[in-house]
Amino acid sequence: MLKNKSIEELNTLCKDIREKILYTVSKNGGHLSSTLGAVELIVAMHVVFDSKKDPFIFDVSHQAYAHKLLTDRWESFDSLRTFGGISGYTKPDESPHDYFIAGHSSTSISLAVGAAKSIKLKKEDRLPIAFIGDGAMSAGMVYEALNELGDISLPVIIILNDNEMSISKPIGAISNYLSHVVSGKFYQKVKKTTKSILEHLPDSASYMAKKFDESLKLITPGILFEELGVEYIGPVDGHDIQRLIETFTLAKEMKKPVLVHAQTTKGKGYTKAEGYFEHWHGVGKFDLETGEPLNKSDKPSATKIFSHKLLELAKLDEKVVGVTAAMPSGTGLKDLMQEFPDRFWDVGIAEQHAVTSMAAMAKEGFKPFVAIYSTFLQRAYDQIIHDSCILNLPVKFAIDRAGIVGEDGETHQGAFDISYLRAVPNMTILAPRDAKMLENIVEFSKDFSHPIAFRYPRGSFGDLPYEGSKISYAKAELLEDVDSEILFIGYGTGVLTAYKTKQKLDFSVALLDLVFVKPLDEELLLQLAKRYKRWYVFSDSTKVGGVGSALSEFALEKELDIKIKTFEYEDGFIEHGNTQKVKESLQLLPSQLAKKVKEYESQSKS
Amino acid sequence: MLKNKSIEELNTLCKDIREKILYTVSKNGGHLSSTLGAVELIVAMHVVFDSKKDPFIFDVSHQAYAHKLLTDRWESFDSLRTFGGISGYTKPDESPHDYFIAGHSSTSISLAVGAAKSIKLKKEDRLPIAFIGDGAMSAGMVYEALNELGDISLPVIIILNDNEMSISKPIGAISNYLSHVVSGKFYQKVKKTTKSILEHLPDSASYMAKKFDESLKLITPGILFEELGVEYIGPVDGHDIQRLIETFTLAKEMKKPVLVHAQTTKGKGYTKAEGYFEHWHGVGKFDLETGEPLNKSDKPSATKIFSHKLLELAKLDEKVVGVTAAMPSGTGLKDLMQEFPDRFWDVGIAEQHAVTSMAAMAKEGFKPFVAIYSTFLQRAYDQIIHDSCILNLPVKFAIDRAGIVGEDGETHQGAFDISYLRAVPNMTILAPRDAKMLENIVEFSKDFSHPIAFRYPRGSFGDLPYEGSKISYAKAELLEDVDSEILFIGYGTGVLTAYKTKQKLDFSVALLDLVFVKPLDEELLLQLAKRYKRWYVFSDSTKVGGVGSALSEFALEKELDIKIKTFEYEDGFIEHGNTQKVKESLQLLPSQLAKKVKEYESQSKS
Repeated sequence: MLKNKSIEELNTLCKDIREKILYTVSKNGGHLSSTLGAVELIVAMHVVFDSKKDPFIFDVSHQAYAHKLLTDRWESFDSLRTFGGISGYTKPDESPHDYFIAGHSSTSISLAVGAAKSIKLKKEDRLPIAFIGDGAMSAGMVYEALNELGDISLPVIIILNDNEMSISKPIGAISNYLSHVVSGKFYQKVKKTTKSILEHLPDSASYMAKKFDESLKLITPGILFEELGVEYIGPVDGHDIQRLIETFTLAKEMKKPVLVHAQTTKGKGYTKAEGYFEHWHGVGKFDLETGEPLNKSDKPSATKIFSHKLLELAKLDEKVVGVTAAMPSGTGLKDLMQEFPDRFWDVGIAEQHAVTSMAAMAKEGFKPFVAIYSTFLQRAYDQIIHDSCILNLPVKFAIDRAGIVGEDGETHQGAFDISYLRAVPNMTILAPRDAKMLENIVEFSKDFSHPIAFRYPRGSFGDLPYEGSKISYAKAELLEDVDSEILFIGYGTGVLTAYKTKQKLDFSVALLDLVFVKPLDEELLLQLAKRYKRWYVFSDSTKVGGVGSALSEFALEKELDIKIKTFEYEDGFIEHGNTQKVKESLQLLPSQLAKKVKEYESQSKS
Repeated sequence: MLKNKSIEELNTLCKDIREKILYTVSKNGGHLSSTLGAVELIVAMHVVFDSKKDPFIFDVSHQAYAHKLLTDRWESFDSLRTFGGISGYTKPDESPHDYFIAGHSSTSISLAVGAAKSIKLKKEDRLPIAFIGDGAMSAGMVYEALNELGDISLPVIIILNDNEMSISKPIGAISNYLSHVVSGKFYQKVKKTTKSILEHLPDSASYMAKKFDESLKLITPGILFEELGVEYIGPVDGHDIQRLIETFTLAKEMKKPVLVHAQTTKGKGYTKAEGYFEHWHGVGKFDLETGEPLNKSDKPSATKIFSHKLLELAKLDEKVVGVTAAMPSGTGLKDLMQEFPDRFWDVGIAEQHAVTSMAAMAKEGFKPFVAIYSTFLQRAYDQIIHDSCILNLPVKFAIDRAGIVGEDGETHQGAFDISYLRAVPNMTILAPRDAKMLENIVEFSKDFSHPIAFRYPRGSFGDLPYEGSKISYAKAELLEDVDSEILFIGYGTGVLTAYKTKQKLDFSVALLDLVFVKPLDEELLLQLAKRYKRWYVFSDSTKVGGVGSALSEFALEKELDIKIKTFEYEDGFIEHGNTQKVKESLQLLPSQLAKKVKEYESQSKS
């Protein structure tokens, strides 16, 4: 029915979509500026292509809210990002119109290549469309995929949504290149030429497409994408529905890999967000009138604490350097980049390059901090092993967003870092239980002469009656030493959970902050095993290969006469939603855990 | 002293180096064709630059033998790739002239960026030189690094050693692009122009460099690297020492990122290897006269068995497809690519793209096999989690080179796959103990409807008296059921080690093939725990998070009254050398293990 609407009606629809998105995100929080900028592009996609058959592949799909609203989710959209509600990303379980899940960036062209190969083999009449932002173009995967796509030359449309900013600001040569294309005389000429050509459409679209194509080649010779075997059309105004429909129709006719370069304004339609970069990328609940955030926390986030401390150290020690992969605000490195632009870098969505380039700096005698979210560090696993750890270089991995991250959900949970890092030789792994200890860990890491990784949560630390102490290598800290057979072992934020669980019990238990999960404080653990016979482990991490696993390996190796129960995440992906609600669903709230402990204890006695 | 030699003397030196390499590789095995092709380039590097101060960064450094010979390792080169001897890759522990370790491809430009940043901050007069093959250009990391390098524009020289073939054959658009540049009229024109300019050198190199640069820009407009902000010089003849010295001198003067595109012949100087592609890339010992391999094994390799079986299945089921990342022979996918060029692909050194594109094919109803070595699969960890496993898509991971791989050494050991995959939800993990079982597993995987990973070793399986049986989901197999308290548990090739160890004991032990490490055969293990009180685990994998760890987690969760000892790899990187010698050094030979078992058992009794 979208296909029969007039341009005017489509523009009205775009307005309605924007209002719906703005209203919902102001209530629920979510991604805002990128999704507002993409509305006309998505509407035009739905006019020209068919999401029931054509794979609509949204890259880091937080820009796809308009797509959700156009595909049977207008009513349920109020539940955006709430537990059990609509996901903030595309999700095949949610709708057949969602081809793939995509919370990590830069996968869309690879998926389109796989889809195109499948379509060819099945001899179907379908066309994969990858919708990708300019920020996502900085990741190596995109290039790997373009390299094959340009070679096999199967029909794929890539819509490049270029708002000249990824999450923060334009990064790197590709971004410079895109701006250059847009600002240069080519753009002006293309604009004129395409306009005159497109006026004749759509009568003989196929013939015109060829002409159009040829004329573009004359004006944009040697352009980067064409060198890679992908036809280039653009730039086009990404808010001009008519132009977009015409351009997509042309691209569809071309039956080969085509990249449509569309320019959009981030935050389009919400004056407060237009032109602002990172602030309006992902937001919490806010007041639509004033743009001010609602229920702002007084407590500084773990990110802020890390950032402050690192800035303090960077001022004192010029060997301190650091890198983020497109998350300057998210990781708190923004302040450091402003203060020391020669020592802190945002390399774009390029976790692999971030880690390996910092390994070289470590070799050169610097003290590099790599600040990456737990879930995104998965992208650099080989570089951690091969470039940092084989040579035992002192790269410091600051792992933000460890544990459950709430509304972003299953693609973003920081569940696996302990497991995947623990297996890597030469790696030291620890975590703070509170703000003070995070500061101490940053300080400890700075001068540590081997690879080291520490994790901390999204949001702020809770309150504990034991203030974080100085870090001693491979030393755990016994916080409560009581006459009991029960020992609670907390790791990182797990210490707070252990403490809260303890408070709900009517019998006394001892409490250990493990501090280091690799290496373990073997000496202390051996002593404790003599007195405490039942160990309960608390950590925000998967149980497979996690903290409980580390202790199990140790207990069996040393033939300790103890029992271990771990309250980590069961082996499964974890849904999105409010963190408390998610934890409740996993039976990991202190009240639920206290109940389990009581049950186990009564079984142990019987 | 190299700097004072005449061109004639340098050419003689190149000849001597080639002879030394040929002789040594024919005795010890090693990488041949790429390293023979790079001799003049490396000699010229040593003439123009200084490896004592300038970082010489060799990408997948198996092409760097000439560099080793030029830097104090002529005498010790006879020990190439032997246990305790010279490594087949650059290795800082071995020589201060080796800047970095590099067994995985495409890290060099990232390292050069890190080095360049460091040099700038330290205000030193040094110049990083990245030496990279055209094959390595297909990996995304290269593009991530170029993206930053073009932006920060620090002096870095990239020497692109273009032999128009990576390990096998040219892959992808970038390769097409390079050939196009070389074969086109540009090349001819450049050749003439550069020649006339270079005749005037080196009197006023700096001025000439500028002229040269300008003239090149006129002839090669819009070239891909220049679009990314990296100056391009080339193509130059990579076997013409004089040309190379002149070109490198120019590049050095330019004080910015420069890519020198050199064309070389793989296998140069050994007639039998010249022009041959994959066969002479990495070789075992061979007869220099005939080129025939020495001590060839009669037994088919695990790779061959996998490949044969998959080909058989692909003939019967058109939904079977597959991918390799630049290892068509190494993974055995070559035969399938020849038989079904539309269903099996080599995507170049692009593990990330390989996995994600196959995830899309799985979504489309195909049965994709991803054949990648254990150590290289680390590159695709996030894609395994995010693109295959969250959606529970039936991608089949065929993990070759699991366990100790011998002479390639520490960058190539397949030690971590069990640990890093076990943590991933929805993943099923198993391994065959022999050839028959590998066939059965390939067949089982084909129709399995979830992500599944199976590992097998380099080389062939050993002989066992229990022929591999059919696979049942999550079922282990009790091979020897005896009246004893001791249970040996083998996983994959560990079954053979367990069996051989058992043969060396004078008391009876039971033997279980675990088959699945995820999920475990809980039912059988619970039964066995009642009878067998001491479990010994045998697997070619790291003990951290490995098979013993999986069993430990299980034993503690179920409160089993057993002891577990695991004979996996200790937590550390493992040196290169003959696999038997490496295992001996790790105390993992059956005779050594039998001794350990006896000791533990006598302790248990006392």
